[in-house]
Amino acid sequence: MGRTEPHWNNLHDAGRLDIVYECVVASLFLSHGIRRDVNFDAILNGPPNPPMQIHINGADLFDVRTDIDTWNSILQKVLSGKSHPGVKIHRNSFEALLKHEAQTNSVYVLEEGGLDVQNIQFPHNSLFVLGDHVGLPKNVERFALRFGEKISLGKQPYLAASCISVLNYLLDAQEKK
Amino acid sequence: MGRTEPHWNNLHDAGRLDIVYECVVASLFLSHGIRRDVNFDAILNGPPNPPMQIHINGADLFDVRTDIDTWNSILQKVLSGKSHPGVKIHRNSFEALLKHEAQTNSVYVLEEGGLDVQNIQFPHNSLFVLGDHVGLPKNVERFALRFGEKISLGKQPYLAASCISVLNYLLDAQEKK
Repeated sequence: MGRTEPHWNNLHDAGRLDIVYECVVASLFLSHGIRRDVNFDAILNGPPNPPMQIHINGADLFDVRTDIDTWNSILQKVLSGKSHPGVKIHRNSFEALLKHEAQTNSVYVLEEGGLDVQNIQFPHNSLFVLGDHVGLPKNVERFALRFGEKISLGKQPYLAASCISVLNYLLDAQEKK
Repeated sequence: MGRTEPHWNNLHDAGRLDIVYECVVASLFLSHGIRRDVNFDAILNGPPNPPMQIHINGADLFDVRTDIDTWNSILQKVLSGKSHPGVKIHRNSFEALLKHEAQTNSVYVLEEGGLDVQNIQFPHNSLFVLGDHVGLPKNVERFALRFGEKISLGKQPYLAASCISVLNYLLDAQEKK
């Protein structure tokens, strides 16, 4: 999913880029603030130029709001080859990205039947792998599990953005202790 | 906030109805499913006809998706006096709604400095009061606290929709035990 050129009617019809948008907001935004210590990556596998990686660095992000029109514009801008502070796009595959990031992060893969998150103490450099609305393809999941651990939020099949909100909450709650 | 007639350019500019939309999705939607045991209410206090209550009953909701265009259409439809399955709108105030609902629900008000949610066992009929991006006005908070308890998700100022995702997760996790 995820169109890799900037022409579309709306984010939903652009290969469900609306899901990417929802995940960006859940990952990076607090009420009236940005999580400066969070990085967000999405791999777009839609036509015509897959795979592309969108990388968002919370430390550098500015001139943004949480609404969909703002992010529709930003995604169209970076997919047109222009730049936005904190948002970059370049050719990369999920496998290459994960292999690189696993050198410096503890990797967790959200899947049914994984270890319950409430039994895990997450280190500061944690990286979470989530699929889209269809779920991770089996071969991608197998690849990811070579680098990380399967974890679960329980029996309910949450929306991707809801999973991220819950993970951010659990990380905040752990840090508090 | 929340315009009370159906003419607008987008939900953000309609008195932040985009926040209402995000909260609807976080409250009622699972991946490929609807929480049939959830009711969602929003009080719109924007011009020209405040206050209006939007009531969404998860048990009756159908013909819906999670994308913003779907909910833009539904909100315009019901504010034009037409109907959508599971979505109703009528004149009502926050105070009248809460007073009525408090007869059959345990009321919790999300505010900084409240009791930590991790120390609470929520009963099945729990009702959560959240403000918009500006927060609950002081007199509204005082009114709500006559009927309920002040609770908190911790020190971070989460987006309203993130709060709801976390609450749904905590309720699911409690039910599991």
